[in-house]
Amino acid sequence: MAPRRKKIYEGKAKILYEGPEPGTLVQYFKDDATAFNAQKKATIEGKGVLNNRLSEYFMTGLTNIGVPTHFIKRLNMREQLIRQVEIVPLEVIVRNFAAGSIAKRLGLEEGSPLPRPIVEYSYKNDDLGDPLVPEEYIIAFGWANQQDLDDIVALALRVNDFLTGVFYGVGIKLIDFKIEIGRVWDGDFMRLIVADEISPDSCRLWDMKTGQKLDKDVFRRDLGNLTDAYTEVAKRLGVLPTNTQPIKPTLIN
Amino acid sequence: MAPRRKKIYEGKAKILYEGPEPGTLVQYFKDDATAFNAQKKATIEGKGVLNNRLSEYFMTGLTNIGVPTHFIKRLNMREQLIRQVEIVPLEVIVRNFAAGSIAKRLGLEEGSPLPRPIVEYSYKNDDLGDPLVPEEYIIAFGWANQQDLDDIVALALRVNDFLTGVFYGVGIKLIDFKIEIGRVWDGDFMRLIVADEISPDSCRLWDMKTGQKLDKDVFRRDLGNLTDAYTEVAKRLGVLPTNTQPIKPTLIN
Repeated sequence: MAPRRKKIYEGKAKILYEGPEPGTLVQYFKDDATAFNAQKKATIEGKGVLNNRLSEYFMTGLTNIGVPTHFIKRLNMREQLIRQVEIVPLEVIVRNFAAGSIAKRLGLEEGSPLPRPIVEYSYKNDDLGDPLVPEEYIIAFGWANQQDLDDIVALALRVNDFLTGVFYGVGIKLIDFKIEIGRVWDGDFMRLIVADEISPDSCRLWDMKTGQKLDKDVFRRDLGNLTDAYTEVAKRLGVLPTNTQPIKPTLIN
Repeated sequence: MAPRRKKIYEGKAKILYEGPEPGTLVQYFKDDATAFNAQKKATIEGKGVLNNRLSEYFMTGLTNIGVPTHFIKRLNMREQLIRQVEIVPLEVIVRNFAAGSIAKRLGLEEGSPLPRPIVEYSYKNDDLGDPLVPEEYIIAFGWANQQDLDDIVALALRVNDFLTGVFYGVGIKLIDFKIEIGRVWDGDFMRLIVADEISPDSCRLWDMKTGQKLDKDVFRRDLGNLTDAYTEVAKRLGVLPTNTQPIKPTLIN
């Protein structure tokens, strides 16, 4: 067990603890999986370990190309040190191909290409089921202003270009993904940075050749073993040594 | 042998032939390698085949993310069909880490990170040795205007984000690369698109763990077998099936 620390927030898949220094937090990845606004729940052995490692991998890659993120360093198998941010209460979704809610809403076949990458927003509110919101609502209710949204779109599209490349290199199609954005202050200067996590929990990932799903839809739609799917992603990216067995529950702290 | 066709242009590593339809060309990849403005020359068996396939791979990836390129389709092992463009007479170089001429010019250690990605231009002129040129020269001599350069920088940085991602996914650091830009007209509307090739001839690629060079510097600096290095890149990207022997000269048409 980790030493007693002040819990700041507990979400569906992660817990945030007070960090060792002001302005930092410890992000703990749970094995809990939820879907359909937590109507479907399960514990998936090893998921938290994989997502901790994968989120480190993607956030580090983004830092390398100059996209600012909350990630500081991984601490252990389930925890990473992050910058404390003020979360913009939006899920920022980038879609390259139709899937999930847009496919349903517009009657599009899943997997059909979109005319161009589409950036959309859901208002983060579990009671309301994270509803899709137009920019007009966001600005009117003061969740972000126009300048913030312009910056968020620019960030989101850079993340999309980079992640699409990462997955393209290992034979995976990035259908869509979700990021969250946080505000940090350097003195009076406010900056927007990528926060939360980037993992197969927050992306739709299809094998390029077979179309096999390698993301949380495996859980949402009962398509097989979720840990196997995430392990496959991690293996292809060299995040786990190739030819290594999936992480065993017994190895997990 | 390919059927007799009108040769439009022969460069150091490629030949352009008249294409089957107006506005198209056939780009043939030779095995010739040159360095130091062609003072060093050799024939590297299999290089053309690898670069044809790798350039197809990268250009297709760019098309997928909405970056326009000249690539239409690969025709055979050494040839691809491309759009005919009016080449902007610049080499557009994007640098993430110091290497080659910038390291020399500024006295930087090779491999040291740059403060941010740097986009620079060489004037394409063999007699002059493709000299570095500031934007001021480019605009003054009319090779491109300010709007073109703004568009070129935007394109180049998107290519950088994407390629950095592709290579990050397979454990390779993209040190720098060079692209060329072409003009095409849709009626009166001029667009700038990525032209020429993207391959280990036009990138500096270092293995992330070992620092091993997997690009044309292997030839420039006599570091080993160039085909082996390019084959390694192609294998990691799944462009060649894994566990396949390097392309044998006997297989080449």
